Amino acid sequence: MAALVRESVLKNDADGPIKVKGGLGTNSYFKNSVYQRLATNVVKDIIDDEITKKLDVKSFLSTSNNTIVLADLGCAVGPNTFTSMQGIIDVIKRKYQSQCPTSAMPEFQVFFNDQPSNDFNTLFTSLPPEREYFAAGVPGSFYKRLFPESSLHVVQCHYSLYWLSKVPEELEDKNSPAWNKGRIHYTSAPDEVLKAYAKQWANDFNDFLNARAKEMVPGGMLIVVMPSIPDGMPYSELANGILFNLMESILVDMAKRGLIREEEIDSFNLSLYAAPPGEFAAVVEKNGYFNIEAIGLTNPAPWLTDDVHVDMIEFLRHIRAAWEGMFIKHFPSDVVNELFEQLMLRLPEVFEQMERAYKEKIQSHCVLQRK
Amino acid sequence: MAALVRESVLKNDADGPIKVKGGLGTNSYFKNSVYQRLATNVVKDIIDDEITKKLDVKSFLSTSNNTIVLADLGCAVGPNTFTSMQGIIDVIKRKYQSQCPTSAMPEFQVFFNDQPSNDFNTLFTSLPPEREYFAAGVPGSFYKRLFPESSLHVVQCHYSLYWLSKVPEELEDKNSPAWNKGRIHYTSAPDEVLKAYAKQWANDFNDFLNARAKEMVPGGMLIVVMPSIPDGMPYSELANGILFNLMESILVDMAKRGLIREEEIDSFNLSLYAAPPGEFAAVVEKNGYFNIEAIGLTNPAPWLTDDVHVDMIEFLRHIRAAWEGMFIKHFPSDVVNELFEQLMLRLPEVFEQMERAYKEKIQSHCVLQRK
Repeated sequence: MAALVRESVLKNDADGPIKVKGGLGTNSYFKNSVYQRLATNVVKDIIDDEITKKLDVKSFLSTSNNTIVLADLGCAVGPNTFTSMQGIIDVIKRKYQSQCPTSAMPEFQVFFNDQPSNDFNTLFTSLPPEREYFAAGVPGSFYKRLFPESSLHVVQCHYSLYWLSKVPEELEDKNSPAWNKGRIHYTSAPDEVLKAYAKQWANDFNDFLNARAKEMVPGGMLIVVMPSIPDGMPYSELANGILFNLMESILVDMAKRGLIREEEIDSFNLSLYAAPPGEFAAVVEKNGYFNIEAIGLTNPAPWLTDDVHVDMIEFLRHIRAAWEGMFIKHFPSDVVNELFEQLMLRLPEVFEQMERAYKEKIQSHCVLQRK
Repeated sequence: MAALVRESVLKNDADGPIKVKGGLGTNSYFKNSVYQRLATNVVKDIIDDEITKKLDVKSFLSTSNNTIVLADLGCAVGPNTFTSMQGIIDVIKRKYQSQCPTSAMPEFQVFFNDQPSNDFNTLFTSLPPEREYFAAGVPGSFYKRLFPESSLHVVQCHYSLYWLSKVPEELEDKNSPAWNKGRIHYTSAPDEVLKAYAKQWANDFNDFLNARAKEMVPGGMLIVVMPSIPDGMPYSELANGILFNLMESILVDMAKRGLIREEEIDSFNLSLYAAPPGEFAAVVEKNGYFNIEAIGLTNPAPWLTDDVHVDMIEFLRHIRAAWEGMFIKHFPSDVVNELFEQLMLRLPEVFEQMERAYKEKIQSHCVLQRK
């Protein structure tokens, strides 16, 4: 359930203008991203260990003007990106002090990337005043090149590779076996639909790796944390899958009531895919530019127990702030309003089921090193 | 007069939140910056020639991963910064083609810098889609470090060094001979006031040069264009000086009418200084990190003739959008509203005088090269 909340407010869409809620207000991502921090903290020790063991800071500095360059791809508006970038810098500093105890500390430059439609104004005005790095914002889709050749040493991508660059085309093709009639996702869909999503994700991730392979120095490290699922498990056993099925059934009911046409459902599909580790590793190996140094699955919400629950109203605010953009691109705004109003009414039907859903191994982490 | 318009909508304040009007609306800087482009075009050929002659592109590439890095300091929200950065890239490309006719073209990275309060969202969403460079935004005051060591090859600063990092402290000290009682600027003020402004500007510019000296590679080029004045000429002979005197007299009248206290005028001073070339060169020489490759004064508005005039209403919109921020930091908003309403009523008193004011040599350009 925490994963659900977390996923709901992180994004990276390739086309824009799908975006998280900007600004600093009550409903903003900036003030509603504590679950995200808790989730990524679950794997922080593993990532820190890998950087400490594998990152050869000393060798970088001979070719980089004494500067270590970091990037967060799909950073949203903060503040989690500031915490995690500073965390990586702290690890690198400790490593450097042990590698080069008598040398001056390198300088650090951090690039914060997200879609051009991201609220960079909020990101920039909330940068930590006492930061130990030069900060820059980079607008653009990370499925394409964003940085000059061999210019990055450490790159992280937290929960953003969950978002596809686009909906797989065959889902909207009536003559394809993957035509996704009456559904909005691959949850509970035929195998062909799941395969179309998996193929799109693999293509996108391969584009991502090709772009990073150009941009990163040899020995540079790429850290990916994202929603996942054990290989072979149906997505309908996860909280998000249960939610998507409910949204789907609300839209079908709206079609029955004549509020939308059935074709509008047929031609709408959520551009989200939670790749299992086997598929992740297969793309990395076929791509060939990176070594896998660590890979695994965790429970992103060990703090969520029988006694500690997610607040349903708060959860809905997250869902709407983060995902409304996908719907608004396809449906008129009164339809989207009705959808979310119905969701508020009907969520209690499935909320307990969502809280009980499998969550033991639904967050993947992977540390890659540029060959 | 064009210089006046131009200066009025460009800025770089060190403390924020003084800023140009963001967004893309009717009154936005984005849509009201054609005068600025005309003004900087006046010196484009001179700058292009210097880059062509002095920039050794070939030597940079051996130490920079085949990337040329540019920065525009005080870029506002565009679109002029896109035009001028692309112009510089075109010159570098031609130079490179003649220096290395058989080698692959380098990649380009452009950093757009301005205060954190600048509207970077507008800047990022209006970036040219077909640009030939990797773009990044950098929030912060250029009187301090913004970039890692030895990371920049070409830097430009158009009309932003007109803005001081702060008002000189002695202007507000009743015991100082530079106490600026009853005035809001150095126009028509005693010598001590002018000297306090000149000293503040020299200190700021020296800080600027020290920061750039760290950030730029040896042989890197720094281009500065800014409002200026021939050495020794009183500022009251320029259009801006006439305008400042009018604003001052409106505030004094408001004090007489009891709308503000006299002390509020005594403690308010515009943080703008138009350095003459002699003072500019003196700071560069004393600083010692740069050679002056070209320096000179031009008329920024040769297109402004007896038959071609500036539209007074449009001019006032510019003035208010750009400078209101300085007043709002000091006066209550109803006082600022009254000031600009009075300005609209009284501007016709001086408008012809402003149009006739000396403008032959009121824009300075300087091309520096890092030693």
